[in-house]
Amino acid sequence: MDFSEKLSDRTKTMGASAIREILKVVGKPGMVSLAGGIPSPDSFPMELIKELTDKVYTKYGSSALQYDLTEGFTPLRENMAVFLNKNGINVNSEQILIHSGSQGALDAICKVLISKGDKIAVEAPTYLGALQAFKPYEPQFVRMDMDDEGLVPESLEEVLRNNEIKFVYTVPTFQNPTGRSLSLERRKRIAEIIIKYGAILVEDDPYSSLRYSGEALPSIKTMAPDNVIYITTLSKVLAPGLRIGVVVAPEQIHKWMVIVKQGVDLHSSTLGQAIAAEYIEGNYLDEQLPKIIDLYKPKHAAMLNALEKYFPDSFTFSKPEGGMFVWAEGPEGLDLVKGYWTAVENNVAYVPGKYFFTEESEGLSTMRLNFTMAEIPVIEGAVKKLAEVLESLMK
Amino acid sequence: MDFSEKLSDRTKTMGASAIREILKVVGKPGMVSLAGGIPSPDSFPMELIKELTDKVYTKYGSSALQYDLTEGFTPLRENMAVFLNKNGINVNSEQILIHSGSQGALDAICKVLISKGDKIAVEAPTYLGALQAFKPYEPQFVRMDMDDEGLVPESLEEVLRNNEIKFVYTVPTFQNPTGRSLSLERRKRIAEIIIKYGAILVEDDPYSSLRYSGEALPSIKTMAPDNVIYITTLSKVLAPGLRIGVVVAPEQIHKWMVIVKQGVDLHSSTLGQAIAAEYIEGNYLDEQLPKIIDLYKPKHAAMLNALEKYFPDSFTFSKPEGGMFVWAEGPEGLDLVKGYWTAVENNVAYVPGKYFFTEESEGLSTMRLNFTMAEIPVIEGAVKKLAEVLESLMK
Repeated sequence: MDFSEKLSDRTKTMGASAIREILKVVGKPGMVSLAGGIPSPDSFPMELIKELTDKVYTKYGSSALQYDLTEGFTPLRENMAVFLNKNGINVNSEQILIHSGSQGALDAICKVLISKGDKIAVEAPTYLGALQAFKPYEPQFVRMDMDDEGLVPESLEEVLRNNEIKFVYTVPTFQNPTGRSLSLERRKRIAEIIIKYGAILVEDDPYSSLRYSGEALPSIKTMAPDNVIYITTLSKVLAPGLRIGVVVAPEQIHKWMVIVKQGVDLHSSTLGQAIAAEYIEGNYLDEQLPKIIDLYKPKHAAMLNALEKYFPDSFTFSKPEGGMFVWAEGPEGLDLVKGYWTAVENNVAYVPGKYFFTEESEGLSTMRLNFTMAEIPVIEGAVKKLAEVLESLMK
Repeated sequence: MDFSEKLSDRTKTMGASAIREILKVVGKPGMVSLAGGIPSPDSFPMELIKELTDKVYTKYGSSALQYDLTEGFTPLRENMAVFLNKNGINVNSEQILIHSGSQGALDAICKVLISKGDKIAVEAPTYLGALQAFKPYEPQFVRMDMDDEGLVPESLEEVLRNNEIKFVYTVPTFQNPTGRSLSLERRKRIAEIIIKYGAILVEDDPYSSLRYSGEALPSIKTMAPDNVIYITTLSKVLAPGLRIGVVVAPEQIHKWMVIVKQGVDLHSSTLGQAIAAEYIEGNYLDEQLPKIIDLYKPKHAAMLNALEKYFPDSFTFSKPEGGMFVWAEGPEGLDLVKGYWTAVENNVAYVPGKYFFTEESEGLSTMRLNFTMAEIPVIEGAVKKLAEVLESLMK
């Protein structure tokens, strides 16, 4: 049977996922991948998770396996409220929603806010997974400039002045893909701008706990609570396979996100939420986070050192104080999508930066490098090899 | 802030969920609820699930907590392939998708197939959760007639002849809400019709294992494999809190469902899938299912007997051979939405049948009754009380 004519308009325009196709080779034997975007399994507190799972079965019994509220497992919402308040976000448990990862939150936000053709303002570059959540809703993307310090407030303001924007999307801290972070001053300025324009800002904050140097920065949510939909996740500080996304949204949007989620998956895995509830309640994150940072900090340093040492002088790269990624940019004219295949022939993989841009013309000479998965000597070797590939491409 | 103007067109048309509102009172102390749609927690193999969880941590280690394939956890897909083949569905593991419950599958199917205004053919009445998945995609619903034996094939054919239907949705066995099942003959006829019209049929099959009498019936999928998107779930035969939906779709639709799911939640909980994989692999369902049936069968009998004994003669009710629900229909003119509040005042709750219909004018004198949650004496007492309420309403 050919069901082509049965496909929805959105499906017809989606096309195959180019990035999905090119990353298929990453798993090839012998490949060293700096392409990943996932936490090291060494960062998962396996023994603790086992203990907490036992505790969940004892404490919650069959409730941990039963249908549950769409809004989220009540003990997790209560514990997350305490946790978020410690981080300066004034919230009660009723204002918290648990989604199936940050991805689930992004999908729900679009379903509530985006009609076909509506405008979403995104950073250039922006998080690829967010684009994958947004695109099926057939929005128009309006790009906002970034520089080394992240989103440029003047660009945000210009975009809001000249467009009807449904929401602004930003990853303000250790952004995926660039690793860039907004300064305190820029956060304040951005908060002022979104308040001035009555805009909704989606603040995606998966990485801020993974800080290896410098001072912690408050979320934009703390500065413009009525305008910000704040999303965080336990994927980087507990385990991504549990699929726990946490949302604090203005009441009106919160209400619709619940109704929308009921249609999408009824609720997120009760068992995973119960384990997460115990993890937060026991303050285990306070024990675990330093271990995760101890694990990543030397990898982060190894990557930055190797880039400094080996990468061609014509390249610049970001120097993030945390997170999981470094962003490198080669000289104009260099095609790092084509270069990807040369790198792969040499058994080293990265993500071509082009895929993080909404404008076809942008980012061809950029790449995203991950430092959380590989071991330190492997990172050093891979960066060295990659540098050789880049030199050969520029000959 | 008032963000009303930021809402999407779909949100603006969604309105509050009436059913959600009316069911809020069900949890009131002292209420006996026949309104539920959830399995008894006594049906969960708690000790076994604990053992399987331990095994998962030993066997899969950190993989059980890591990001995983959008398509589903490979061992679960492999084990489900074996399981489905035993049930006559010829499938290999690559053709299986794991979604976040059947709900997640229904959402993905709409995303792939439905543009605003497209037509979906549904039974009258149909599963409320499916309507909640479908409505945000702004389809038109085309109703198909049912009788005591389920979907009427002639009505299906008439609908397909006169409409461009994106897909037909049916719950052929122990339907929610009616408990009705299609005979073998009707299944064959429906398979012929959908093949004849090149139609896609979504066969939602959560209940067929819960059979208390009569002969097992093959799924429509076995008769029209190229036209049917088959959905089943472990929510009724293991535990719903794990949120495991299983889909076998024609290849072209399968492919898009993966891409769409990547944007919606990346993948379903790895831990939950791993536990499910062990449950299927160990053939524990063969042990557990008779226990679940032993649990529900007397409740099913108690409900049917009590209806026979107490309900007004002017009511008819379905006599399902399995599943979780009985459907009752009162005399024309009786308003069982209004009656709901009288019942609730008398501490007994049901679901007004009206909410399972897509046409505003239908189902006012119908109700859905669940028999899996309450204990037998409670079921008997509740049906008796409800019968008194109904008598009083008809005075």
